[in-house]
Amino acid sequence: MNITMIEAAAARLAGQARITPLLNAPLLDAAYGKQVFVKAECLQVTGSFKFRGAWSAVSALPAGTRGVLAYSSGNHGQGVALAAARHGLDCVVVMPSDAPQVKIANTQAYGAKVVLYDRATEDRDALGAALCAQHGLVLIKPFDDRQVIAGQGSVGLEIAAQARAAGIDAADVLVCCGGGGLSAGIALALEAQAPGLRLRTVEPVGFDDMARSLAAGQRLRNLATTGSVCDAILTPSPGELTFPVLQRLAGPGITVTDDQALQAMVLAFAHLRLVLEPGGAVALAAALFAETKDPVICVASGGNADPALFRDALARFG
Amino acid sequence: MNITMIEAAAARLAGQARITPLLNAPLLDAAYGKQVFVKAECLQVTGSFKFRGAWSAVSALPAGTRGVLAYSSGNHGQGVALAAARHGLDCVVVMPSDAPQVKIANTQAYGAKVVLYDRATEDRDALGAALCAQHGLVLIKPFDDRQVIAGQGSVGLEIAAQARAAGIDAADVLVCCGGGGLSAGIALALEAQAPGLRLRTVEPVGFDDMARSLAAGQRLRNLATTGSVCDAILTPSPGELTFPVLQRLAGPGITVTDDQALQAMVLAFAHLRLVLEPGGAVALAAALFAETKDPVICVASGGNADPALFRDALARFG
Repeated sequence: MNITMIEAAAARLAGQARITPLLNAPLLDAAYGKQVFVKAECLQVTGSFKFRGAWSAVSALPAGTRGVLAYSSGNHGQGVALAAARHGLDCVVVMPSDAPQVKIANTQAYGAKVVLYDRATEDRDALGAALCAQHGLVLIKPFDDRQVIAGQGSVGLEIAAQARAAGIDAADVLVCCGGGGLSAGIALALEAQAPGLRLRTVEPVGFDDMARSLAAGQRLRNLATTGSVCDAILTPSPGELTFPVLQRLAGPGITVTDDQALQAMVLAFAHLRLVLEPGGAVALAAALFAETKDPVICVASGGNADPALFRDALARFG
Repeated sequence: MNITMIEAAAARLAGQARITPLLNAPLLDAAYGKQVFVKAECLQVTGSFKFRGAWSAVSALPAGTRGVLAYSSGNHGQGVALAAARHGLDCVVVMPSDAPQVKIANTQAYGAKVVLYDRATEDRDALGAALCAQHGLVLIKPFDDRQVIAGQGSVGLEIAAQARAAGIDAADVLVCCGGGGLSAGIALALEAQAPGLRLRTVEPVGFDDMARSLAAGQRLRNLATTGSVCDAILTPSPGELTFPVLQRLAGPGITVTDDQALQAMVLAFAHLRLVLEPGGAVALAAALFAETKDPVICVASGGNADPALFRDALARFG
């Protein structure tokens, strides 16, 4: 991946993805003693940045491609489903049978065929490979794919331009991190277009595989795969493609607690009037509760929040 | 008021107010069978369109003005407070003593002095007039002020440009309506710049003074002053300045129930990842639940939602 691929992806995204706003709340700045800018990717089509990478990958497929397949319990699946539908391609999304009903319904509403599997007894990869072979589908990986990373990098191009317009030439850029596709794409874009902006990954405590990997200089795995409310970013380990990029370009990783993520959701509700999901709120949590440069830019990466969880967060921190 | 005043206000607002996005959600369109575009003024500075009119009025004051005063239990007061602070002016906001604590605290945090009064026993107008005389303050009215209306009209300039960019040349534009300042400003802007867009006011059932006044051809009052969750738009009657504008330019007014407003809040949560307050959600409610032209544009005018009320709405409609 390089800046040329990112710019090409951004050109393909024009008119499909939104240029999301970079928001700021004076009262939040005053309360936390630093300037905090929020890149509102929760306002992206399908409610998360994932549509960018999905569109980038799908739009780069060779002519004659029949259809695509994605594994996802949430945001990546919805992004791929809508991108495929707008390209007139078949789309199958393999989802765990215990995925939230609303995410299954939304993925179907975007036009995808949802195939459910049992996490305990079935092998997702084998099931997906069989479906790809049988129906002539191309697998769109969630982060370890060059075109996906290039598409997510378009967020970084926008941050570079928006920071420049706001007069910011040095800042930390905090990014919610699962496998590192969004982080790697943004880091590459900033390297080329805003070298004073330093990317730092943010993860939940106990699922800080990227932070530990960056510190160790090698890819390490999380000990657990479940147990945080930040479901969207609980990836087992950094990606093969994403890790070397972040090793070269990212500052030290930051971790936040689940409660800090939930509190950040409530602060976004009150001060930014944005709906964030927990995994999309960890970067804002780090901006407010961790030591960072001032000013700090954080990416609010997704807003597909469960209503019951959102209610509980408001009850506890509202 | 005229388009020249609106354009002058918009020029003064540049760099202070946000150009808010015009959003659309494919799944919402599919579910309700029409194209719905949402002008997200809840993302405006201070959480509502009110900052535009406040800034327009404050920035038009003569040099040497000492300070300003506003009556408000909510959004207008916060807009005036921030506009005054950025102009280095004193600001007093007269608020009822039973106003939500968070709105009092926020108004103070923007730098205003808050003077509380007892709704049952004190005369707000007399109190405000005495304070203006005593401290040399200028009253900034919430809607019946030419510069306030001109500032709100900047929303209409943006809608005209954004609709054009989206290829929309004929649509209904639904606006949450209290005294009619936002509606009148938008109507004047659309008349000049997008004559195929027809403004329609939206109010809660039982507080439809504007709809009834437009139908009757004269200003009528609401029978009640409280009793709807849409607190931000429960104005007793149309404004003296706003009504003639809307009589000339607006289509028939629409009314929605409180429950429809709450349901629209929840749909905005799920499909747009926006936080709306009930009074800021009535236009979206009308877009979804009333008969309108297709496509329809609605202004989501404010997002300063009470957390407890938001929780209840999610519990009932989420």
